[in-house]
Amino acid sequence: MSPTQLLSTSISSTSSAFLAAPIAFKARNQNVSMASKKPPICTCVAAPQEQKNVYTTQVSRNANIAKLQAGYLFPEVARRRNAHMLKYPDAKVISLGIGDTTEPIPEVITSAMSKRAEALSTLEGYSGYGNEQGEKPLRTAIASTFYGDLGIEEDDIFVSDGAKCDISRLQMVFGANVTMAVQDPSYPAYVDSSVIMGQTGQFQKDFEKYAYAMYMSDDNPRSIFEIPGAKEVAMETSSFSKYAGFTGVRLGWTVVPKQLLYSDGFPVAKDFNRVICTSFNGASNICQAGGLACLSPEGLKAMSEVIGFYKENTNIIMDTFNSLGFSVYGGKNAPYVWVHFPGQSSWDVFSEILEKTHVVTTPGSGFGPAGEGFVRVSAFGHRENVLEACRRFKQLYK
Amino acid sequence: MSPTQLLSTSISSTSSAFLAAPIAFKARNQNVSMASKKPPICTCVAAPQEQKNVYTTQVSRNANIAKLQAGYLFPEVARRRNAHMLKYPDAKVISLGIGDTTEPIPEVITSAMSKRAEALSTLEGYSGYGNEQGEKPLRTAIASTFYGDLGIEEDDIFVSDGAKCDISRLQMVFGANVTMAVQDPSYPAYVDSSVIMGQTGQFQKDFEKYAYAMYMSDDNPRSIFEIPGAKEVAMETSSFSKYAGFTGVRLGWTVVPKQLLYSDGFPVAKDFNRVICTSFNGASNICQAGGLACLSPEGLKAMSEVIGFYKENTNIIMDTFNSLGFSVYGGKNAPYVWVHFPGQSSWDVFSEILEKTHVVTTPGSGFGPAGEGFVRVSAFGHRENVLEACRRFKQLYK
Repeated sequence: MSPTQLLSTSISSTSSAFLAAPIAFKARNQNVSMASKKPPICTCVAAPQEQKNVYTTQVSRNANIAKLQAGYLFPEVARRRNAHMLKYPDAKVISLGIGDTTEPIPEVITSAMSKRAEALSTLEGYSGYGNEQGEKPLRTAIASTFYGDLGIEEDDIFVSDGAKCDISRLQMVFGANVTMAVQDPSYPAYVDSSVIMGQTGQFQKDFEKYAYAMYMSDDNPRSIFEIPGAKEVAMETSSFSKYAGFTGVRLGWTVVPKQLLYSDGFPVAKDFNRVICTSFNGASNICQAGGLACLSPEGLKAMSEVIGFYKENTNIIMDTFNSLGFSVYGGKNAPYVWVHFPGQSSWDVFSEILEKTHVVTTPGSGFGPAGEGFVRVSAFGHRENVLEACRRFKQLYK
Repeated sequence: MSPTQLLSTSISSTSSAFLAAPIAFKARNQNVSMASKKPPICTCVAAPQEQKNVYTTQVSRNANIAKLQAGYLFPEVARRRNAHMLKYPDAKVISLGIGDTTEPIPEVITSAMSKRAEALSTLEGYSGYGNEQGEKPLRTAIASTFYGDLGIEEDDIFVSDGAKCDISRLQMVFGANVTMAVQDPSYPAYVDSSVIMGQTGQFQKDFEKYAYAMYMSDDNPRSIFEIPGAKEVAMETSSFSKYAGFTGVRLGWTVVPKQLLYSDGFPVAKDFNRVICTSFNGASNICQAGGLACLSPEGLKAMSEVIGFYKENTNIIMDTFNSLGFSVYGGKNAPYVWVHFPGQSSWDVFSEILEKTHVVTTPGSGFGPAGEGFVRVSAFGHRENVLEACRRFKQLYK
């Protein structure tokens, strides 16, 4: 029995079930002294001076979280970038990793947020709790802008603080007893949030996210709801992050059509609504003002200019890798370029590129087994950085 | 077999496990026509014209959500308020229900948010994804302002979009296999989010929230971490909502001390960090600028003036019910007054007050069985509304 086990098992819980916090305060010191009196049986134990501070609660760790094999992908990439910057303090590191927007938000959008913030200091302009589902004008504008003739209505739209957040709330809606299918490669939040909820096994769930619809330039559907019958089998999550540079502002939405029913005929939207009312209090009113400005005629024009800029970046990156003889995927309808390094490990290629060019990419294997052998290069960056990164790629792979 | 079951069981899932959304599109119409050809065996079925639109997925409803007995408390109160306003379109309804702040946010705070929003349209001022845990200056300011000499450090603070949201993320951290104890009466998000996650049974979890520390005027601890040893057994969730009128702006924080360990010695903070990295992308950068301004000397002074205003409201409400001979609880260290109506149903009293005075309160039973026989009156309101509501209470109960 390790000292840690000794400490935790010798504490009994109190019977004061409704007074949560202060249990076991008294017992704590007694146990520490017990532990120091009794020499541990196992030899691989912490040094005695460390034992003094080891108090453990009786709460077991969530086994589902323990299953997660590694840190969430993007913080892990950031950790390696930071380590690299410590190793090479003078290097000009260029980040084409996580896919973070870099260009300023169009002024027509920020001024709407600024005005809303200022109005909050006035009696007329102040607002408190909003609807958990979002402000009606924004829901209406999202429905008409993105789903105009698809039969999606204002009350099918749930405004959120971003797609990643909604993915977890959707997992809460479905619970541990459904099983989850994801594409491979896949946005890691799909997989990780599913593991946390304890969902494993075979496909049962109709759930899809279209990426980056406003970046699409061919005839593929922008929304899953362009497919007839989709309202009865699908939901869709989207955000303003990559359209308007809202990665730090935080605003998104999820469409849960009222036609989507569980096997017993109960509407999924009613349960989603129950979960957001319980676990969310609506997106920030200031950010919602920004979202509404995004969907004004001037906002839409400004957003499409920013998107056009990133698409030019994408073309520069694709041309670079094509000219170096690499097979390149993606890039056409999304601001990411997948470069193939057959037979190599994604993390090895990631490390080599970082070490030799000081450019941060994302290892494809972080998105799933099918991503192995690829690195993903994000097209989000200032133009001079994208050009400089491409110069370094040409140097490395010439 | 009901038509609904017939429809759902006759659809077989495809083997394309990695293409989530478009399954069963083909099968759908076939099944609908099957159903209309085959008369239902059970007599209590939907009328045939309704069957045409009934397509159900194969996904089962989450049994935990189905367990929730009624709508989340505050939307239910809002629903009844709205019904009342339809019934009495000319009535001047006063809301002292959910506890929504009504006074403008001090200008020193809104101008910080306005400036941050404007800066996002400039190259120098733009920022994308922030740290999921929050911006370092804000984490530092929270640690020093609220936990200055309690040994809580900047990296123990996790900034969020509000306490309600963090409660659900904490439930995700602990998972379905722990059991949850809550005080009674209790903030309903504790109970409902716990039910959604499937947590039932006896006490195991050390978890506490202090309400409204800045409203406290006696010697009780403002933070649980004032209690020696609490860092090893407790977490604390708080927010700017009631301090600075941020109910619509959305900003809060959770303290997970690095000393808090699971029974196996693993730090809870590491798993909380993993969950927020997976299911959250940080609070809005604009709102975080507001939070930092709250904690400046001018911000703190402005916040305490707003809090003083609401505390005067509280005294007015307490004096009113005391003068009418009611037993009144709360009000001293929190901006809510609990009025006792012995032997009566909370919802009945709520309805009577609404019907006869057009004042919205909150039924105490919505907070748990121990709240039965009480209504809660919120002190958040413009002064003239609080005075008018008190006049009407005196009229009703004179």
